[in-house]
Amino acid sequence: MSFHATSSNARAGDIAQLVGLRHKHFIITLKAGAKLETHRGILQHDDLIGKPWGTQVFILVTMGIGPGKKIIEAGTGSGSMTIALAHTVGAEGSVISYEVRADMQNLAKKNLERVGLASRVDFKLRDLAVGCDETDGDAFFLDVPNPYDYLSQVRHALKPGGFFCSLIPTVNQVELLLTALRRERFAFIEVCEILVRYYKPEPNRLRPTDRMVAHTGFLVFARKIEPSEDKRGNELVEEVGAGLEEKEE
Amino acid sequence: MSFHATSSNARAGDIAQLVGLRHKHFIITLKAGAKLETHRGILQHDDLIGKPWGTQVFILVTMGIGPGKKIIEAGTGSGSMTIALAHTVGAEGSVISYEVRADMQNLAKKNLERVGLASRVDFKLRDLAVGCDETDGDAFFLDVPNPYDYLSQVRHALKPGGFFCSLIPTVNQVELLLTALRRERFAFIEVCEILVRYYKPEPNRLRPTDRMVAHTGFLVFARKIEPSEDKRGNELVEEVGAGLEEKEE
Amino acid sequence: MSFHATSSNARAGDIAQLVGLRHKHFIITLKAGAKLETHRGILQHDDLIGKPWGTQVFILVTMGIGPGKKIIEAGTGSGSMTIALAHTVGAEGSVISYEVRADMQNLAKKNLERVGLASRVDFKLRDLAVGCDETDGDAFFLDVPNPYDYLSQVRHALKPGGFFCSLIPTVNQVELLLTALRRERFAFIEVCEILVRYYKPEPNRLRPTDRMVAHTGFLVFARKIEPSEDKRGNELVEEVGAGLEEKEE
Amino acid sequence: MSFHATSSNARAGDIAQLVGLRHKHFIITLKAGAKLETHRGILQHDDLIGKPWGTQVFILVTMGIGPGKKIIEAGTGSGSMTIALAHTVGAEGSVISYEVRADMQNLAKKNLERVGLASRVDFKLRDLAVGCDETDGDAFFLDVPNPYDYLSQVRHALKPGGFFCSLIPTVNQVELLLTALRRERFAFIEVCEILVRYYKPEPNRLRPTDRMVAHTGFLVFARKIEPSEDKRGNELVEEVGAGLEEKEE
Repeated sequence: MSFHATSSNARAGDIAQLVGLRHKHFIITLKAGAKLETHRGILQHDDLIGKPWGTQVFILVTMGIGPGKKIIEAGTGSGSMTIALAHTVGAEGSVISYEVRADMQNLAKKNLERVGLASRVDFKLRDLAVGCDETDGDAFFLDVPNPYDYLSQVRHALKPGGFFCSLIPTVNQVELLLTALRRERFAFIEVCEILVRYYKPEPNRLRPTDRMVAHTGFLVFARKIEPSEDKRGNELVEEVGAGLEEKEE
Repeated sequence: MSFHATSSNARAGDIAQLVGLRHKHFIITLKAGAKLETHRGILQHDDLIGKPWGTQVFILVTMGIGPGKKIIEAGTGSGSMTIALAHTVGAEGSVISYEVRADMQNLAKKNLERVGLASRVDFKLRDLAVGCDETDGDAFFLDVPNPYDYLSQVRHALKPGGFFCSLIPTVNQVELLLTALRRERFAFIEVCEILVRYYKPEPNRLRPTDRMVAHTGFLVFARKIEPSEDKRGNELVEEVGAGLEEKEE
Repeated sequence: MSFHATSSNARAGDIAQLVGLRHKHFIITLKAGAKLETHRGILQHDDLIGKPWGTQVFILVTMGIGPGKKIIEAGTGSGSMTIALAHTVGAEGSVISYEVRADMQNLAKKNLERVGLASRVDFKLRDLAVGCDETDGDAFFLDVPNPYDYLSQVRHALKPGGFFCSLIPTVNQVELLLTALRRERFAFIEVCEILVRYYKPEPNRLRPTDRMVAHTGFLVFARKIEPSEDKRGNELVEEVGAGLEEKEE
Repeated sequence: MSFHATSSNARAGDIAQLVGLRHKHFIITLKAGAKLETHRGILQHDDLIGKPWGTQVFILVTMGIGPGKKIIEAGTGSGSMTIALAHTVGAEGSVISYEVRADMQNLAKKNLERVGLASRVDFKLRDLAVGCDETDGDAFFLDVPNPYDYLSQVRHALKPGGFFCSLIPTVNQVELLLTALRRERFAFIEVCEILVRYYKPEPNRLRPTDRMVAHTGFLVFARKIEPSEDKRGNELVEEVGAGLEEKEE
């Protein structure tokens, strides 16, 4: 969460509020390379700079991630999304997070320990290409540059109706991912992007800020549907198609 | 949560996925006036039509609403936001929801019972102008046309650092609310709007949809800061000001 | 016209192409305080920095400004819009430009002379509040902070059907201007804003730029309709209303 | 030019103002299949429906199209853009317009005659692949689904510094066009899209309309630079790169 006047990304110079810590919120000014020293440990500000808060939130809710859910993530990275997932699934939920780089996994483990959420996360050091142990995930967040190469693993890891999401920066990646999602028979495929525009909060001179974030990535959502459900899925798609006619103009 | 191709609002004709129900998701096509009959009761589709899903989610996360929080809401309406709040605070959290119309409150109660979340909500039939019983709320969502008239009550109900949010459609309301927030010494005031643009998910003809939702309302956020904290608050604002110089260009 | 990758405003550091000069275009890098020395004179780069090119163009076309038109402007400022107007009306057209500050008018005159367009412009040193000589303008571009104070003068200066446009930064100004336009019985009132989003032109990594201009001002358009035409105007408005019903949803 | 409340496209139900006709403007309500009968001829309303006005204007100005210019267009279609080009170049300018379908060319000829601009246009019935007669065009507007297949012809037809523009709906086309523009050594390549958001013009309840046009196509601009100028072009690009560093953040 950040208090920024012109951006939906946390950046150096922003004031950030750290959530998920006990008792109270910490409010800090982000500086590249600086650290936050608390009684719970040390957080590198760099871990927070550049993360699109609004987009992260949007992902969590659109994927139906809430208390008690079982979520799979790949790759872990520095653990930023892992923290958000572990926070949102609550004490009854769980997160399984795959990563190929041992140094990144160690960094993520430390970050999760610092915010007291490590016990909710099962860190696995493995290339997703080798395979996924899980078969009953509620949602899969695939944070790699080539998500289209791992969709059979994602399909294997999700339970029927499970959600898939990937956040990718270029339209070329979106094209490849859409082709792969169709090949793997995912349904309810959606592509969107989110723009957040801030206003200067002056009641007598109210106006948008001069500049805004133009792009935080394309969000691609889909759901796993079992062959036995495909018919129902197709019917739903047909209903949607009919319902949309009047909207498309 | 909805599966919509061209909108971030749930509308007649959209496919909606109902979350928070046990065992499985229900996926339905919304129809004005229609009902969803489940073993848990009946949901009027009209309750879901016209709600900006993405915006609701954005509010929840920006206000730091998560497991265990105590949230105050006014007015209850049909209980749509109440359901989202009760779902997100989990079994350890609580929601207090004020409403002046008895018929609306009854409708909301039924809706919360249908989704099994009524036990987390304390419904109060009272005009907020009369006063608020709470003094330690983590967040206050004020969903009335004239939020600027109730800020002293909101201030009373929030604990220091507590979050305020209001979603209002016109710039005139934003102006009045900003003036009132300053008068009541709220800090970290932010105004923003969210635009979600959907794409036609065709890998070989990838392009945005023809039309999109242009407006779901202005989001106004603020935090209560105690007089004793004002100095710290001012310092933070000065730091932000300094940090923003380079951004404003 | 500018070659900018992330902005629709000309800014220091941008490359600008100067149009309307004989034989060839000059392509320069804008620097605050710098000058362009050509055989036709000297242009202060500051005159070009901060002008929203795309918005200016949009204004010209929406107001029907083309060869042979008679356009009135107030105030002249440094002559940036005056150049665009004089260029667009061609040799058969004319521009009348009001300004209250003699120093600004002198600067504008020099700028128009430098680009060879001064002969198409009638510069008047007068406060518009005193009155307007013209009665048959095709369009009136009112570039002052308080356009709502001069609408009777604008009405007097326009011929029936003539276009009015004002570009103002805050919503508070828009509210005051809309009230004044109704009071003066202007018709076909429109308010809009324009967002231009640029892409990084890499065919294999195509994506929007990271940041964009979030606001170049609100554009308010209207047309003068004579009392005798009011009935027809009202009918048209009713037709529009009917036509719009299906769009508003 | 249109008076529409929620769209930057002319659509059935919109009120349109026809410009470029003598004496006065015609203001009509567009209806699919209807005609406008004037003393100058008949205009099919369908010719106007679906044209993105704001985008068309933006193209004209960004390409430096004004009085006296020589513009090449392919394909002619129903002549909508041809009218805009012929109107803007004035009596001293000229438009050459290529088209492969005789029926479309005949329709365009009639439309240009009706608005009195046919004398400014040289209609050619030929596939651009066969070759282009011109070598000194100021600007080339390429309105075909596969613009990437005709860039050597465009290069041949433009004088040094001449402008190229194409308006294409999908990102796949943009990728192919960018690759072809680089291969043909075009410079100052830009990709952008334009969003126009309208407001309900109520001074006491000012707010954006509920829905807006989400996409009118991607605009791709470029300029022909001669080999002898390439060095200068590269220097300019380097300057731009340097100037942009501070903007990219």
